[in-house]
Amino acid sequence: MKKKIALLPGDGIGPEVVNEAVKCLDAIASRFGHDFEYIEAPVGAIAIDQTGNPLPESTLEVCREADAILFGSIGDPKYDDDPTAKVRPEQGLLRLRKEMQLYTNIRPVEAYPELIDQSPLKNDRIAGTDFVIYRELTGGIYFGEKWLSEDQESASDLCLYTADEIRRIGHLAFQAAEKRRKKLTLVDKANVLESSRLWRRTITELGKAYPDVQLDFLFVDNAAMQIVLNPSQFDVVLTENMFGDILSDEGSVIAGSIGLLASASVGDSTALFEPIHGSFPQAKGLNIANPVASILSAAMLLDHFNMTEEALVLRQAVSQSLKQGVVTSDLKSGSPFGTSEVGDFIADFA
Amino acid sequence: MKKKIALLPGDGIGPEVVNEAVKCLDAIASRFGHDFEYIEAPVGAIAIDQTGNPLPESTLEVCREADAILFGSIGDPKYDDDPTAKVRPEQGLLRLRKEMQLYTNIRPVEAYPELIDQSPLKNDRIAGTDFVIYRELTGGIYFGEKWLSEDQESASDLCLYTADEIRRIGHLAFQAAEKRRKKLTLVDKANVLESSRLWRRTITELGKAYPDVQLDFLFVDNAAMQIVLNPSQFDVVLTENMFGDILSDEGSVIAGSIGLLASASVGDSTALFEPIHGSFPQAKGLNIANPVASILSAAMLLDHFNMTEEALVLRQAVSQSLKQGVVTSDLKSGSPFGTSEVGDFIADFA
Ligand SMILES: CC(C)[C@H](C(=O)O)[C@@H](O)C(=O)O
Ligand SMILES: CC(C)[C@H](C(=O)O)[C@@H](O)C(=O)O
Repeated sequence: MKKKIALLPGDGIGPEVVNEAVKCLDAIASRFGHDFEYIEAPVGAIAIDQTGNPLPESTLEVCREADAILFGSIGDPKYDDDPTAKVRPEQGLLRLRKEMQLYTNIRPVEAYPELIDQSPLKNDRIAGTDFVIYRELTGGIYFGEKWLSEDQESASDLCLYTADEIRRIGHLAFQAAEKRRKKLTLVDKANVLESSRLWRRTITELGKAYPDVQLDFLFVDNAAMQIVLNPSQFDVVLTENMFGDILSDEGSVIAGSIGLLASASVGDSTALFEPIHGSFPQAKGLNIANPVASILSAAMLLDHFNMTEEALVLRQAVSQSLKQGVVTSDLKSGSPFGTSEVGDFIADFA
Repeated sequence: MKKKIALLPGDGIGPEVVNEAVKCLDAIASRFGHDFEYIEAPVGAIAIDQTGNPLPESTLEVCREADAILFGSIGDPKYDDDPTAKVRPEQGLLRLRKEMQLYTNIRPVEAYPELIDQSPLKNDRIAGTDFVIYRELTGGIYFGEKWLSEDQESASDLCLYTADEIRRIGHLAFQAAEKRRKKLTLVDKANVLESSRLWRRTITELGKAYPDVQLDFLFVDNAAMQIVLNPSQFDVVLTENMFGDILSDEGSVIAGSIGLLASASVGDSTALFEPIHGSFPQAKGLNIANPVASILSAAMLLDHFNMTEEALVLRQAVSQSLKQGVVTSDLKSGSPFGTSEVGDFIADFA
């Protein structure tokens, strides 16, 4: 199969880890006889440096023409001091989500038995954890009207949802649950928020079309507790944008290494795949960044192309690297393997 | 000293645990020669049952006339099915906060060495944790304008803050930091929300009056990770209402037992003290509920009356009960001690 993949390596360790993911995709392509074409484009701080814009029009064009987007990470310390600055790398990511209508962010949280000692949770708490968070990504308080009074003494943000926005991600989440353990947990704050009550009504209604999926509800404060107390209870967790931002980051650390977690942001016409970790600027250029999250993003991209066997082969190669201890030093201190050695091992194995 | 204390035991195990707290307050009163007068009033489901209103006007009157409020817990399973019902126990709590202008919720999160094995976190992660969350409690998206479109297909909630609302809790948080390890972490989402940018500007400005307090900033998603990864880094955490709801519940479970955590909600004219745990209806009337959180709420109440030594004595009595294993079965399975035995031990010791 012929596929066009937009590469948006971004800032910090982004370029290095995306490089390893491409290595692995090339290995898969040659093994299965596919033809992957890559088109690289700038985003984030590097795009600001080059063009003044964190998401240049030309980058959007590249994304629109591609079958999928492989994203690295964005962010640079020089923008960290002032989150109120007019031009910031994050805006590139937010605009990309909105422009490409990537309305569903999917984040698997899985405890690898090999890494259980690395989890901040006690081993018996984390064992068996295998859930996936479906976070709405283009609505809610992120994109609602913002207001600052003239005297700059009052400010507001509007959290607005329509039932249609809820339904489109709702269908994806129910379908995912059908293919998994058939349990969907909607996280909201329906005892306080009108928008949460809309979520609850809409998802309850939608659930009638998925009678074999068990639908549960959890208030967001309770969900934040349960993820730490008993994470293995979850199968598919569905939630709105802001709650999803918080819970998916909380979920991402319990698994033991953020260097292993990938995510997908999907819409009706395209999808973007990226590691969960940030740009980790301190590690830039040192060949120490863990490339696995980026490689697993590539596996999610293969799934998106319906290349199920290809994705499986790539994931097995990653498992082998963990089993054989061919890992970067974040997973085994003093490990002799760097970013490119781990990437080579996985690509060879795939 | 003569003090009037409003008792709002509420639902579920609320009455039982408040009863033990009163026992301890009486012991303290007789040891130190104080005169505590208690006036009981209904709130929550029991108030709905009695009057149709989760916060009857007469209860508000009792609270207004008291020097402080000792609160149990509210909530009844019969209201759990439908978070959109017109009359609900939670509304009593939200209205009480707003009417009494209890704008600052204070939640200590402390790891007791005796309980470290109970924490869901690995022992070395939780050891040394000792922080306190200052959550804004009467503003933000909880109380902003709510909207539901006529066709019920769109809904919104407004998150609005004024600089004055931020300053009054800000001062309390800085003052707390001055008395502790002199570190204040503001948690916000200033890279996305206008209201968060107002928080950041206002607190930064306020910080100039507290030069010996180190002020840090953390995005809320990162904070949700750090609480699990490295909770001992925090001293005072300051945040807005919704983020505080989520993070304080997350924080409450890492310490090992929610049955031990107390909280205070303070305003300019009065203050309310309550355990973090809910009404736990399954345990109602069984003499198994852990009374310690309620007793530690009473200790916070003593602090509020500037009865520092009294509060210390009561906390030491609680420590003794933990050290000697006079605890309820949530802390030691098979423990022969029930709610009232633990309360008796602590009251005797105090
Ligand atoms: C960078 C930031 C705007 C973004 C978000 O809040 O969505 C990030 O935290 C994420 O989760 O992808
Ligand atoms: C019961 C609910 C409305 C309340 C809140 O969200 O504030 C509770 O979760 C709390 O934190 O006290």
